[in-house]
Amino acid sequence: MSNLKLNIAMSLDGFVAGPEQSEENPLGIGGERLHDWLVPLRVFREMHGEQGGEVNASSAVFEGWFENVGATIMGRNMFGGGPGPWGEEPWMGWWGSDPPFHHPVFVVTHHGREPAEMEGGTTFHFVTDGIDSALEQAREAAGGKDVSLGGGATVAQQYLAAGLLDEIEVSVVPILLRAGARLFDNLDGASIALEQVRAIEAPGVTHLKCRVTAA
Amino acid sequence: MSNLKLNIAMSLDGFVAGPEQSEENPLGIGGERLHDWLVPLRVFREMHGEQGGEVNASSAVFEGWFENVGATIMGRNMFGGGPGPWGEEPWMGWWGSDPPFHHPVFVVTHHGREPAEMEGGTTFHFVTDGIDSALEQAREAAGGKDVSLGGGATVAQQYLAAGLLDEIEVSVVPILLRAGARLFDNLDGASIALEQVRAIEAPGVTHLKCRVTAA
Repeated sequence: MSNLKLNIAMSLDGFVAGPEQSEENPLGIGGERLHDWLVPLRVFREMHGEQGGEVNASSAVFEGWFENVGATIMGRNMFGGGPGPWGEEPWMGWWGSDPPFHHPVFVVTHHGREPAEMEGGTTFHFVTDGIDSALEQAREAAGGKDVSLGGGATVAQQYLAAGLLDEIEVSVVPILLRAGARLFDNLDGASIALEQVRAIEAPGVTHLKCRVTAA
Repeated sequence: MSNLKLNIAMSLDGFVAGPEQSEENPLGIGGERLHDWLVPLRVFREMHGEQGGEVNASSAVFEGWFENVGATIMGRNMFGGGPGPWGEEPWMGWWGSDPPFHHPVFVVTHHGREPAEMEGGTTFHFVTDGIDSALEQAREAAGGKDVSLGGGATVAQQYLAAGLLDEIEVSVVPILLRAGARLFDNLDGASIALEQVRAIEAPGVTHLKCRVTAA
């Protein structure tokens, strides 16, 4: 069975991004602190072509985000997409020439463009007809493997509200952002029941995995 | 050193009570689910004069709430206090004739009344001149031991905003309440920095203990 899994970092007061999110600053003001536990990890640095770094209980959790995953969905701010913000050149996102996905990535956006084939097996596809279409295309591309939803807040909320998520891993970071985008917001009347699968304590973060069950 | 420690259950979307809190329903609509992990515990049942019950990873956490604690502070809804809602008799709160505290309890309220001495060493004191006064009286009564802040949301927010808490244990419950009282709300410009002490996974809940540090 192919699951749709959300992995996202959330402050203890419920925000997955600070205020004033933009293409230049997709995590908003102060939001980069949500990744303070992630960025020093050796496994994260290796994935971005760097050496050294820490190994701790978060390492296996982060690796788990990519296990058995055949395709990724993300929102446009997380891609950094749209027309190039800094001049005429088409902007290729945050991910460099060899993005760490190594599988098809579907970017939910209003800006249609041709697919961008990168080094290392990652191809960015730009989906302009909504989250159902993105999921359908991602499931097809994943060939039976899971589909990972990378965020940001808006697409996460949309998939939650539509009842399309099978699993949520929330990495709870002991900071208070006080303002910004909440993960559990704009859910309208959606009925969402959760079942705790496991919690893992790591330096500066606790990883809570929940199964989304029929409410 | 005498610490002020908050122990409170919070939904994954950040609420410590559902909507429409009242003296009759201090946890609001749906809020009693915040205690679904707690009520079946043997240690909780024994504390309320009942037998049987479960033993799991939450048992030691719950016992820890009372360790080295010499006094408790709570808000009026948690006491159930004020004039008796059901007839003329003075209402003695939710806690029965032998409350589980066995030490002085300071109830922050607008309704002044005489102290109520219960069986088993618990005396309820009613503090009408604010949270600073309640803390001062509780520290004095605790005689060097810690002071426990039991909630509800309003007094927890007040102590957080005033920068008076030393430790927060948030028991994160994998439910979405969607509305009600948020723990981290009404904090105004308070500068609050947290440091994760530990996380404990238990059935249906994860207990996150954080130290409040100078921001």
